[in-house]
Amino acid sequence: MIVVMSQRATEDHINAVLKRLQKVGFEIHLSQGVERTIIGAIGDKTRMADLALEAMPEVDNVVPILQPYKLASRTFKEENTIIRVGDLEIGGNQIHVMAGPCAVESREQLFEAADAVKKAGATLLRGGAFKPRTSPYSFQGLEEKGLQYLAEARERTGLKIVTELMDASSLPMVAEYADIIQIGTRNMQNFFLLRAVANVQKPVLLKRGISATIEEWLMSAEYIMAGGNYQVILCERGIRSYESYTRNTLDLSAIPVIKHLSHLPIIVDPSHALGKWRFVSSMSKAAVAAGADGLLIEVHPNPSEALCDGPQSLTPNNFGSLMTEVQQVAGAVGRTLT
Amino acid sequence: MIVVMSQRATEDHINAVLKRLQKVGFEIHLSQGVERTIIGAIGDKTRMADLALEAMPEVDNVVPILQPYKLASRTFKEENTIIRVGDLEIGGNQIHVMAGPCAVESREQLFEAADAVKKAGATLLRGGAFKPRTSPYSFQGLEEKGLQYLAEARERTGLKIVTELMDASSLPMVAEYADIIQIGTRNMQNFFLLRAVANVQKPVLLKRGISATIEEWLMSAEYIMAGGNYQVILCERGIRSYESYTRNTLDLSAIPVIKHLSHLPIIVDPSHALGKWRFVSSMSKAAVAAGADGLLIEVHPNPSEALCDGPQSLTPNNFGSLMTEVQQVAGAVGRTLT
Amino acid sequence: MIVVMSQRATEDHINAVLKRLQKVGFEIHLSQGVERTIIGAIGDKTRMADLALEAMPEVDNVVPILQPYKLASRTFKEENTIIRVGDLEIGGNQIHVMAGPCAVESREQLFEAADAVKKAGATLLRGGAFKPRTSPYSFQGLEEKGLQYLAEARERTGLKIVTELMDASSLPMVAEYADIIQIGTRNMQNFFLLRAVANVQKPVLLKRGISATIEEWLMSAEYIMAGGNYQVILCERGIRSYESYTRNTLDLSAIPVIKHLSHLPIIVDPSHALGKWRFVSSMSKAAVAAGADGLLIEVHPNPSEALCDGPQSLTPNNFGSLMTEVQQVAGAVGRTLT
Amino acid sequence: MIVVMSQRATEDHINAVLKRLQKVGFEIHLSQGVERTIIGAIGDKTRMADLALEAMPEVDNVVPILQPYKLASRTFKEENTIIRVGDLEIGGNQIHVMAGPCAVESREQLFEAADAVKKAGATLLRGGAFKPRTSPYSFQGLEEKGLQYLAEARERTGLKIVTELMDASSLPMVAEYADIIQIGTRNMQNFFLLRAVANVQKPVLLKRGISATIEEWLMSAEYIMAGGNYQVILCERGIRSYESYTRNTLDLSAIPVIKHLSHLPIIVDPSHALGKWRFVSSMSKAAVAAGADGLLIEVHPNPSEALCDGPQSLTPNNFGSLMTEVQQVAGAVGRTLT
Repeated sequence: MIVVMSQRATEDHINAVLKRLQKVGFEIHLSQGVERTIIGAIGDKTRMADLALEAMPEVDNVVPILQPYKLASRTFKEENTIIRVGDLEIGGNQIHVMAGPCAVESREQLFEAADAVKKAGATLLRGGAFKPRTSPYSFQGLEEKGLQYLAEARERTGLKIVTELMDASSLPMVAEYADIIQIGTRNMQNFFLLRAVANVQKPVLLKRGISATIEEWLMSAEYIMAGGNYQVILCERGIRSYESYTRNTLDLSAIPVIKHLSHLPIIVDPSHALGKWRFVSSMSKAAVAAGADGLLIEVHPNPSEALCDGPQSLTPNNFGSLMTEVQQVAGAVGRTLT
Repeated sequence: MIVVMSQRATEDHINAVLKRLQKVGFEIHLSQGVERTIIGAIGDKTRMADLALEAMPEVDNVVPILQPYKLASRTFKEENTIIRVGDLEIGGNQIHVMAGPCAVESREQLFEAADAVKKAGATLLRGGAFKPRTSPYSFQGLEEKGLQYLAEARERTGLKIVTELMDASSLPMVAEYADIIQIGTRNMQNFFLLRAVANVQKPVLLKRGISATIEEWLMSAEYIMAGGNYQVILCERGIRSYESYTRNTLDLSAIPVIKHLSHLPIIVDPSHALGKWRFVSSMSKAAVAAGADGLLIEVHPNPSEALCDGPQSLTPNNFGSLMTEVQQVAGAVGRTLT
Repeated sequence: MIVVMSQRATEDHINAVLKRLQKVGFEIHLSQGVERTIIGAIGDKTRMADLALEAMPEVDNVVPILQPYKLASRTFKEENTIIRVGDLEIGGNQIHVMAGPCAVESREQLFEAADAVKKAGATLLRGGAFKPRTSPYSFQGLEEKGLQYLAEARERTGLKIVTELMDASSLPMVAEYADIIQIGTRNMQNFFLLRAVANVQKPVLLKRGISATIEEWLMSAEYIMAGGNYQVILCERGIRSYESYTRNTLDLSAIPVIKHLSHLPIIVDPSHALGKWRFVSSMSKAAVAAGADGLLIEVHPNPSEALCDGPQSLTPNNFGSLMTEVQQVAGAVGRTLT
Repeated sequence: MIVVMSQRATEDHINAVLKRLQKVGFEIHLSQGVERTIIGAIGDKTRMADLALEAMPEVDNVVPILQPYKLASRTFKEENTIIRVGDLEIGGNQIHVMAGPCAVESREQLFEAADAVKKAGATLLRGGAFKPRTSPYSFQGLEEKGLQYLAEARERTGLKIVTELMDASSLPMVAEYADIIQIGTRNMQNFFLLRAVANVQKPVLLKRGISATIEEWLMSAEYIMAGGNYQVILCERGIRSYESYTRNTLDLSAIPVIKHLSHLPIIVDPSHALGKWRFVSSMSKAAVAAGADGLLIEVHPNPSEALCDGPQSLTPNNFGSLMTEVQQVAGAVGRTLT
């Protein structure tokens, strides 16, 4: 951490800062320039957030130097983390596609979707039983019934199950059925929920908050890991920008950046980011070319009848073409798809 | 709702859309222009989100015309809502200032803050017992002990209590102590939590999500109101933009916009928005001049020793000056402060 | 400047950086911690942008410490700058309102607007003769004819003239008629244009770019000042955010921030920021309460017939009410309006 | 265009709007619902921007339905536009890479870069002779000398030349040397400059403004095309978002969106978007996978000595690897690179 003192800082102001830093055990490096005094402080980076140095007189600026996360960082663990879900390895050489409807609507709808995505090469089935909806008047999900259908679909197809947890109170129920527990974009900083999934030994798919920085996202992963669950898969799903033609702005740069900063696997959800099925295939190929470890894709047997997110859902046919095209790109970057 | 068909749309494509709209009971107005066919559909606006018309062939665009919220809208209720908290009226002519520390740290710290803000003219005491912290290694709050101190401070000063609820499981405990239950910015779309507070008959202070549109914010108010609790106070606290000199960008335009679209009271939290105590006073005056019904201000007896948000906390002295200045502005716009 | 070396940096990597810094005359402070080596470098801050230290091996991060602008900073000049336009003083105790139509459309329209804003208490007349329009098919302005009408309106009313310069080639013409030369938001980083107005001895109204940081804005002021023209008035006019209910997001925090970082006067244009006349009055009061030195307001005799920006233009009547209300707020913060 | 009247609108308010629309020749479709009256208006879309209907009493909202651009739209021209630069075809099956230094610094530097990028498979050489720099104290370019070196490098290598035009006054000079004239991100809405390049028969590379919507970007292309120059190449170079780990956020979604809305070719500049050389290669592959027609890459013989943008410049070696990897991906999506 670097503390930049203002030009008006006297020796007393500087000493006050030094004392405060020393009291919490930081090692000090002092640079007294002509224009400014600059204090370098090295110590337990996890304690820095609680020091309110900017509130001290004549402190101009405090610049953090080290990353505030530890367990999630590549500095802490050099080699890539591979998450095992049954016999699947997420973060390894094979790219995994998690596909299925936004919401589980009925047994028939789910089975039709599951059969189609299985056939096209997906290895996991996605589907929501609890749905976070912007409007209180929208379909909110089938809840436990939905989870049961997902389990039946797993029986039927062998696909592993990814499904969203919305509240700590439903964790035991969701954990019973899911192979991977999804934390949605609106809950990335629901710290109660993060602490709850830290206590289960199930992989967690942590979606990036709609306006979360990469650092905040890794801090949320750190919450889960600090609580004892190291099986975190990150999922980029678009961030909020001023551009409104697409629903959100898919930040594919997050892929190489996460690979640089962290050892955790990262997958991409182009369906939610784009909001229009027409653009999902291009962005899936781009995600894989950029180094993503997997994709999360919405597929619905009949998108225009979907109770949720129809406009961004692919038909089984379109999904089949997408898989063929993605396979080509996967090969070009030395990865396999199926 | 307006459905714009593509130039390639045939009569069959258009009829398919018409059928789907009629099936759910919409009244249709058809405009067949030279370049495009445009379909106007009037009906239950709360059902529109669930129609996936964009997923139908040759539909170019779907433009919503009416607001998706109802109970929160000024169309539904013309006159301003006034929320009563004991003998205080929020949303009336008097501006209310809720002040106090970010986190309750100890009985002494809280009492010192409470006495100071009471003396300066605040009518409510704020203080967090459960703290949502970006880092798992930061101070997380005193929990029930903190709530007890708040209740003692209320006894001592007569100030009403505003405190944050972070999870539905602690609702009974928080509701026992709080006069106003705060839903924080990270939980504005935690729909489980919204449904939970909809069932208590306590005023709710609903902070705007850090990247929530005004419409989404009103939809979250609608969640609480649709569940039966009409006592919602909105709180603008800064949105995320590209500008990084201030912590967030305080969107004061939200004040006249909310007053135009809704009947609910709106207050402003300049401390979190700016992130630097130095700018809190200017923005408090601006908020009141723009028509805010109240302010939420961080005050700490000793900001540089604060366990949370020290850099943005005012000293009791600075808070006193702020109140004097705000009172002048309140008078200039025909409001009172104390 | 602080250079943070990566954990893998060897002595050779560190020495390479030290050599490069010393070569350009920087004074060095070295901190060798257990985890990282951190290099502090103090020297001519204006040269830092040209050092590509991040491109050197094992350099992790370069953190600038000092502001990159000098002439525009309050460190360079402590007292507020007052810009004189005839007998008006912008940046002094009196708040100045610049009002008038978006575009000069005809002599009659301009005179009607000028008479109305003069009567209500404005001291400057705004109006565009060259219009930057998003569409090539929109009205582009009356050009020199428009400037002549502005000069006639000045004769008639005594109001000073503010008008936009869009290209260096029209500078001689615009400078002949204008009292203040406006640089529009789209040209804030048109460095040719900035260098051109640096050579005229006329006040420049520098609008903030629609996505410019406060630092970039001050750098553009620095361009004009470094070229020899110290008469720069800053104008906040809304920034681009994800919120789309208002046209842009008016960043009123920029007022106290600019007052802290710089000695230059700052005014606010709520008309362009909001895009809807209905919200202009609230935000004008807020701007003055926050400390603005002036306002730029669009007024049109008949907004719904305006060739440009009608929806955000006030009628003369509404402008009259605005001025009465703003005067109250000005008084409350110790300023005068007329 | 759809005009939504407020609930309070009387017949007189509605008639006033109808009259205004009919006066400018629009065809009207009226829908009088129970809650609202909605007016559909079909006519010359290029005139809509100049109607200030929102300023009329009891008009709630005006929703544009058709795109405001025409010549740039795929509706106007179905097949892809191919831009010919000598014997190169941009927008055809072959992907073209434009590479070279940010700024031309010396003959030696430029020749070294040119030889390297030629060898690796680039077909065009980029290099700035006029440099838009945020700071007035930074290196501003060699101007005509720089253009001459570029011409010499073209002689030497056969590479075509892309270079930036910053002001209309230097157009004759730049047009003499350049094969493609670049309009930089800060000038995307410098309408004087757009009109100037509309009059030359040279291809124009139009960079997206740092906070331009896709629609505004296409409107700027429309400016050039409406003036008579149809040879426009679009270039995505990152947009401004809240994320600050990368310099900007590369919006690769713009590729399929532009391909959907327009017939113009689109290339991608990952160097400026990312700001860090380390991430350029991943994003180049992603761009090609998403369907880009080319890449613009910064390459410098010695990045850490570069006078401009060193941190994002690749060494010739790294550029060689990038080209090999991009070629694989190009093949996977049915394109060729060299």
